Amino acid sequence: MHDKPAVTQQPIHDIIARRWSPRAYDVNRPVSRGQLVSLLEAARWAPSCYGDEPWRFIVWDRNHDAAAFQRAFDCLGEFNQRWVKNAPVLMLVLASEHFRKGAPNRWGMFDAGAAAENVYLQAVALGLAAHPMGGFDAEEVKRAFNVPDGYTPMAMIAVGHQADAAVLDGDLHDSEIALRQRRPLGENFFEGEWGRPVVPSGL
Amino acid sequence: MHDKPAVTQQPIHDIIARRWSPRAYDVNRPVSRGQLVSLLEAARWAPSCYGDEPWRFIVWDRNHDAAAFQRAFDCLGEFNQRWVKNAPVLMLVLASEHFRKGAPNRWGMFDAGAAAENVYLQAVALGLAAHPMGGFDAEEVKRAFNVPDGYTPMAMIAVGHQADAAVLDGDLHDSEIALRQRRPLGENFFEGEWGRPVVPSGL
Repeated sequence: MHDKPAVTQQPIHDIIARRWSPRAYDVNRPVSRGQLVSLLEAARWAPSCYGDEPWRFIVWDRNHDAAAFQRAFDCLGEFNQRWVKNAPVLMLVLASEHFRKGAPNRWGMFDAGAAAENVYLQAVALGLAAHPMGGFDAEEVKRAFNVPDGYTPMAMIAVGHQADAAVLDGDLHDSEIALRQRRPLGENFFEGEWGRPVVPSGL
Repeated sequence: MHDKPAVTQQPIHDIIARRWSPRAYDVNRPVSRGQLVSLLEAARWAPSCYGDEPWRFIVWDRNHDAAAFQRAFDCLGEFNQRWVKNAPVLMLVLASEHFRKGAPNRWGMFDAGAAAENVYLQAVALGLAAHPMGGFDAEEVKRAFNVPDGYTPMAMIAVGHQADAAVLDGDLHDSEIALRQRRPLGENFFEGEWGRPVVPSGL
């Protein structure tokens, strides 16, 4: 198993620092029912605009319903299928386009992202790993699983017990052991006004 | 100080369970520079589609630049101003509408939501609290802080040390001590296909 803790200028909480998106999973270690419900409960308690809870999740567990899992797997892009074949659980997170009272909700995707982050972090807390993917056919997933109009599929999420990078081949293996990187703090984080980099020390 | 841990059917990690959005802050306790950088580092290490890091943050600390803080405060709705007047720090989180290479990024808001969730959770880990708000004038904030086209303001976030609910009056006080609630798990979380509620136990 490969660890890649975040390199930061001030400490951050352990489950945030240790969260990353591995592709090496152990196909022989299921996610337990209790773990699955913990992941969803973490999402459930995310904050949302007006408390509208605009996220929806659909989960598939290959050890529970192999046929349904396969139908979800078939919606993934070819690159993702190469490694998701070893993940025991898939999830789809969707964002509601409207508040429950009917008006357009411009925070649906933002709030769904907060709920999804809780899933990734709760996975770390449970000794699991989670990997969100944009590479799937959103129209096909809506058709295959009867998603009504008004909900936008945002990400498929693979979940499982991490395995050694050796289970992956070629470019997948190389990316699994590559360093994690982020742009310098001051490039995306400003102080006072747009474009003025926040600096880590001093005021 | 009022605690409202999440009520769940399986345990979730402490910082996820204890995160909520209080409105009672201690105006006399600043957020330290180190704490501020920790909050931003937590956001910086969130996952994003193609690693594009589409989030941007602008921060204002009333104990560093009172005039800039006031200009950010002036962009809030009246209801929020009633309690944010005691918060020492404000942040704005924005989502890029395009990937850095130019194509539209349909995950910008989703990824910004993940980064923001890390801020709220890191606040809990530091003994602080954070409260995201949709109630602000997005056009005014863009004008006031020179935000270029192509970035959507998603939420203003108040951050500080929590205070006793007694610092709040009337309806603000009542909501501060009210129970936190979420819809039942099976209402937003499905298994196998849309609309089939996930159930907490059994397979």
